[in-house]
Amino acid sequence: MTANRFDTSVYAHRLRAAAEAASAAGLAGLIITPGYDLRYLVGSRAQTFERLTALVVPVGREPTLVIPRLELASLKESAVHELGLAVKDWVDGQDPYDMVVDALGGDPVATAVTDSMPALHLLPLTERLDDLPVLATEVLRTLRMIKDPAEIEALRKAGAAIDRVHARVPHFLVPGRTEAEVAADIEKAIVAEGHSEAAFIIVGSGPHGADPHHEHSDRELRAGDVVVVDIGGPYEPGYNSDSTRTYSLGEPSAEVAEQYSVLQTAQRVAVEAVRPGVTAEQVDAAARDVLVEAGLGEYFVHRTGHGIGLSVHEEPYIVAGNDLPLRPGMAFSVEPGIYFPGKWGARIEDIVVVTEDGAEALNQRPHELIVVPV
Amino acid sequence: MTANRFDTSVYAHRLRAAAEAASAAGLAGLIITPGYDLRYLVGSRAQTFERLTALVVPVGREPTLVIPRLELASLKESAVHELGLAVKDWVDGQDPYDMVVDALGGDPVATAVTDSMPALHLLPLTERLDDLPVLATEVLRTLRMIKDPAEIEALRKAGAAIDRVHARVPHFLVPGRTEAEVAADIEKAIVAEGHSEAAFIIVGSGPHGADPHHEHSDRELRAGDVVVVDIGGPYEPGYNSDSTRTYSLGEPSAEVAEQYSVLQTAQRVAVEAVRPGVTAEQVDAAARDVLVEAGLGEYFVHRTGHGIGLSVHEEPYIVAGNDLPLRPGMAFSVEPGIYFPGKWGARIEDIVVVTEDGAEALNQRPHELIVVPV
Repeated sequence: MTANRFDTSVYAHRLRAAAEAASAAGLAGLIITPGYDLRYLVGSRAQTFERLTALVVPVGREPTLVIPRLELASLKESAVHELGLAVKDWVDGQDPYDMVVDALGGDPVATAVTDSMPALHLLPLTERLDDLPVLATEVLRTLRMIKDPAEIEALRKAGAAIDRVHARVPHFLVPGRTEAEVAADIEKAIVAEGHSEAAFIIVGSGPHGADPHHEHSDRELRAGDVVVVDIGGPYEPGYNSDSTRTYSLGEPSAEVAEQYSVLQTAQRVAVEAVRPGVTAEQVDAAARDVLVEAGLGEYFVHRTGHGIGLSVHEEPYIVAGNDLPLRPGMAFSVEPGIYFPGKWGARIEDIVVVTEDGAEALNQRPHELIVVPV
Repeated sequence: MTANRFDTSVYAHRLRAAAEAASAAGLAGLIITPGYDLRYLVGSRAQTFERLTALVVPVGREPTLVIPRLELASLKESAVHELGLAVKDWVDGQDPYDMVVDALGGDPVATAVTDSMPALHLLPLTERLDDLPVLATEVLRTLRMIKDPAEIEALRKAGAAIDRVHARVPHFLVPGRTEAEVAADIEKAIVAEGHSEAAFIIVGSGPHGADPHHEHSDRELRAGDVVVVDIGGPYEPGYNSDSTRTYSLGEPSAEVAEQYSVLQTAQRVAVEAVRPGVTAEQVDAAARDVLVEAGLGEYFVHRTGHGIGLSVHEEPYIVAGNDLPLRPGMAFSVEPGIYFPGKWGARIEDIVVVTEDGAEALNQRPHELIVVPV
């Protein structure tokens, strides 16, 4: 295993599973352009846009990678060569779409394409296929959602790294400093603790904590503020961390302490609800019911969580209406929050992985409202 | 005009011209999702992916923006409200694709869609249209290629800013420093001189200068190195700079000086060839012929230039085979280079705008091989 990808056997297994899923869906094959699916299947971080790069995974034939000749060197980082995949390179003037159809074999009528495939490539491909393709997510959803041991270990490392950042956050939270200054410190800490970069940094102080979409601003922290800190980023080989803790600059009021303790219960109860067979919406309801019962239901304005992996937001979504039964290996956030517009907000977020009989939390920092002395 | 976009009248004009171009192409309208086309037409920097945002520009009807309700606040930065566009917001559970078809009006059979529209949205849209769409670039190409006065002024400012960076580059080029250290200094200077960020930084020293795709590395600069520095980035409201100069650490050898002077002639002759009616490939040939005549043709391994605007690389491409006649307002790079593998390389690049009777160069730094005393 290199630092930037898993062992080749991991990708070999995924390619076989992807072809099996395509077969089970009655398709002739998958056409995968650069993006998370390509990285998932062969460890390639290609980002070509204008010139077509496409991994073709046919049912009953060997996969082929169609790639512009001038991008061939980029394959060294991927598992493509070690997998022994057929590589068909092309130069300006050749038709790479015909090469894709050839690689599918025979007379393919039903295919699936990467969700992010741009019209620039999808339209000429569709002209050469008899049927409109379907989305690859329809086929790869289960495979991508259920993390293999190598992925879970990568998510564990990312979780430990963001925990180390949260351990440092109290030192950054000094009255008079701006949210943006705190965010700059956090960004450096995220990288220093081993992430390849920061993907997002929310520092919501005082009334800004009541906006779940707030990032950070020039507002200066004040004694008495409650501060929501929601941070994360990719950790090689590219799996993301995402954890929220809420801090209080000085002792909180009795009201804040009481409402926060309800939120803490809601987050704990939701995590306790996680086990195979329970549905995504049942986990959402577990958190929501606690808040509703305490009269705080209307202040919890978003879903309880989202899946995580190569992408920060992916399936499964922990939301009302999603009756997907949880299965071992699924990884997602459990992050209820309460938001009082114009006043303050709070959120507690851990990433959890579904185990055979419950959940493993990948974040270990205390869940209490963390009081920073001022 | 705010700092982040042009005056609303600029977008009003562009929307009218886009609808006229769609009409002339026999289409019912355009469907534009986030990306450069959306930014070009209404000044929106939306980057939504999962949930559909789409500007619908029908022929013979008013444009409509379909947008998720939770993204409505993002419109403040754009010209959408001042343009008085109809805005149709939607929430989870509604079908935004039907809203797009409604906004097109009647029974639209022929539409064009943004080149970057992902399959995630293009497939459900296509199911609701009778015909496979075409690419919006086919319709908007001429409009986007011919810069209006506001765009040319923006490109001028970007060009002046990158010139100020090149003026500082000799101070960064000290033997013993690495290319990466020099690149870090340049990145700071690019922002300090007014760009919103650095888009690319090539520091190719010694043999690395012979690879046009080299970025930067840990190689330490040495006395006697020839160093290619190719840099640029977006300048508000988002138009890019892109300029290359070549530096010599100490006096160059007679051979380097002689070959460089041929390159300088090639670049000058190509710029002198630029005027309305001349084709893109004639400009490429003008540079190439000078190098071929001096026996250096085989060392010039890429096209002579690329269009520039909101995107660093866009049409027109200055390349053999492109018989597009130049028109006033087109903006592109003129950047011949010579590359001696394992030894050294050189490139000279200015952005030029086609005028009524020639070309205006947007970069003004000297074209000579710039000797840095060591």
